[in-house]
Amino acid sequence: MAPTISRRAQLMPASPIRKLAPYAEAAKRQGVRVYHLNIGQPDIETPEPMRRRLAAIDDRVLAYTPSGGTPEALATFRRYYRSLGIELDESELLVTTGGSEACLFAMLAVADPDDEVLVVEPFYTNYNAFATLGNLRLRPLTSRGEDGFHLPPPEAWQAARSPKCKAVLLCNPSNPTGTVYTRQELEWVAQFCREHELFLLVDEVYREFVYDGGTSLSALSLAGAEELVVVIDSASKRYSACGIRLGCVVSRNQAVMDAALRMAQARLSAPGLAQAIAAGIDEIPSAYNDTVLAEYAKRRDVLYEGLSAIPGVFLRKPEGAFYLMPRLPVDDAEHFCEWMLSDFSHDGATVMMAPAPGFYATPGLGRDEVRIAYVLNTTELTHAVAVLAAGLQAYGERGTG
Amino acid sequence: MAPTISRRAQLMPASPIRKLAPYAEAAKRQGVRVYHLNIGQPDIETPEPMRRRLAAIDDRVLAYTPSGGTPEALATFRRYYRSLGIELDESELLVTTGGSEACLFAMLAVADPDDEVLVVEPFYTNYNAFATLGNLRLRPLTSRGEDGFHLPPPEAWQAARSPKCKAVLLCNPSNPTGTVYTRQELEWVAQFCREHELFLLVDEVYREFVYDGGTSLSALSLAGAEELVVVIDSASKRYSACGIRLGCVVSRNQAVMDAALRMAQARLSAPGLAQAIAAGIDEIPSAYNDTVLAEYAKRRDVLYEGLSAIPGVFLRKPEGAFYLMPRLPVDDAEHFCEWMLSDFSHDGATVMMAPAPGFYATPGLGRDEVRIAYVLNTTELTHAVAVLAAGLQAYGERGTG
Repeated sequence: MAPTISRRAQLMPASPIRKLAPYAEAAKRQGVRVYHLNIGQPDIETPEPMRRRLAAIDDRVLAYTPSGGTPEALATFRRYYRSLGIELDESELLVTTGGSEACLFAMLAVADPDDEVLVVEPFYTNYNAFATLGNLRLRPLTSRGEDGFHLPPPEAWQAARSPKCKAVLLCNPSNPTGTVYTRQELEWVAQFCREHELFLLVDEVYREFVYDGGTSLSALSLAGAEELVVVIDSASKRYSACGIRLGCVVSRNQAVMDAALRMAQARLSAPGLAQAIAAGIDEIPSAYNDTVLAEYAKRRDVLYEGLSAIPGVFLRKPEGAFYLMPRLPVDDAEHFCEWMLSDFSHDGATVMMAPAPGFYATPGLGRDEVRIAYVLNTTELTHAVAVLAAGLQAYGERGTG
Repeated sequence: MAPTISRRAQLMPASPIRKLAPYAEAAKRQGVRVYHLNIGQPDIETPEPMRRRLAAIDDRVLAYTPSGGTPEALATFRRYYRSLGIELDESELLVTTGGSEACLFAMLAVADPDDEVLVVEPFYTNYNAFATLGNLRLRPLTSRGEDGFHLPPPEAWQAARSPKCKAVLLCNPSNPTGTVYTRQELEWVAQFCREHELFLLVDEVYREFVYDGGTSLSALSLAGAEELVVVIDSASKRYSACGIRLGCVVSRNQAVMDAALRMAQARLSAPGLAQAIAAGIDEIPSAYNDTVLAEYAKRRDVLYEGLSAIPGVFLRKPEGAFYLMPRLPVDDAEHFCEWMLSDFSHDGATVMMAPAPGFYATPGLGRDEVRIAYVLNTTELTHAVAVLAAGLQAYGERGTG
């Protein structure tokens, strides 16, 4: 008889962002154009200075790099943080294989099996996956679309906390909701963590993506929280180079950083080519960020206005990232998203979205919500909204005609 | 008060291969040449077709790749396995971020916290690190230098097995000993696994490195073991491109591969640049392997003969990989290796080696052994052996003169 895989392997969730892919493939084979609003793969070009660095690599031996990162990549990250007003020692920064590995290292460094981590739901679905890998438990605090998915009230935090709780995990600006937490909110959470001796893990991968002249406050800037804060970051996401896998974990807590380094030694090194390309980040003109931000702001506006005009759709205007999570007039977003791919097209096109339940830990929540990533240009987004509106109407009229 | 890091983070071992690095840096600052025999970073050039592929990359968006691997990289791996006589479906193969991630996925897929994995010691030290990350236990079976580190006898396996045991983990050819297991040994282990419903994880990263006309048998070729075997592989190691991080996990057990895919989705994708380079593997002339193998065989011979001639040094001739683990006439290899870096030089040079205790799980073992990687040319190795011989003599005479 074949041996049985581990329980954690059985429990590992399939990606709710990717699991409808076979339906999308089938739609494409039938000649339907599929607008991919399901996944955060930006269409924006990787900045030219990074591509130039890639073209300049001529090593004859593509060798291991230091486990904690190459001196050059570390220096680039430090300069980047300095530009945000955050001074870091080299020992406070470690290069990772994308933000994903930074998140895994941070979670495993603060929590043992059966320990709990408080997380505001809806949350980035892969937190669930990393928790399952490490056998820790995510204890969800529900945020609501009516509040723009801002933090739940203090009573909810007190009620959710248990002696097994070791950390709070936030995403700011938030994937999947686009919410940007205020200074007041972050200071409150830091105070809560300090009071209860919890780590504060903050995924700041979307730090630069804040609209309407706003900014997001890095948890590294919170006075008095130095020993609590562990930041998860990704340069490959920020600079539209998702495939190179270049992230970092940042903390002023030396015990965390020492542990992260030992974890990094276990996997020998982060991708060397990504680190070689990192140096190009220093040469990206400052206009780049403004241009990209203006483009994303336009997209958000197109989507926000377009979606708000569809009968029965509700959302607050999100402040950042490139995601939003509208409520739709459907009972079962899983079924609706699948139906859009397998049973519907409008004008030769359909829309692929990520059903929201996978972004909640509490069963039953998110059944009337979807996550939408705005990584297409405004012309395509405008058409996608029209297709979605037609889809919602047809879905509501199923079986009635 | 600052919160405390997790117990697993506290227990994460520092790399015994890398922890003497500060002593080596200090020696270099004093003008001493350090021969790095501690780490398996080959000096052999990355094959030209792979570097050519790298130079040809001109994507304007360095985008995410599919979680399980790009179709091109998967096809290259399948052609490679076909060349070994192993036919694989696409679903039996998943691209990973180096062999390291393949090893992590394989271990987590078969064992839960507190489960046990049988492993022959001395073993690749990072197995310990991955086990600590995943809270599983390595149950060591001791192999002996006198037996060329071949498998311990059946009684030892029976004695080590417990109901918590879920898998056997082997490295063939072995890092750190250079041992290549025979077909008979592998068939015996597969039979043992079948009898006790255990998975058989085999790290075959050094598959091609077998000398004296021998070959290593892939566990994928073992008849009747299809549902048990999970192979850990690395193309970046095989082709001297360690820094790109390109590995794979291979199994005919679909439950394992499904779980591996869900783990892979959690980290989104393996490095895209490494996968783009992978296509170059198809164009590597068959003479490449022969040339590289001949070079490593020469190095092994230089080391084996040189080390055997040093009074008090014992080793059997290793059959493969590019490591060997001699016994030295010292009481404490940790101290000796540190002393070589901090207190000794000969002819302006010293030697950095990895003390063996970090490669054992049983406390107290390996205290008179070191692991040596032969990743330098024969001229350098010849000098390194002379330096080591002089060092051993001086170390023995400390305090007596």
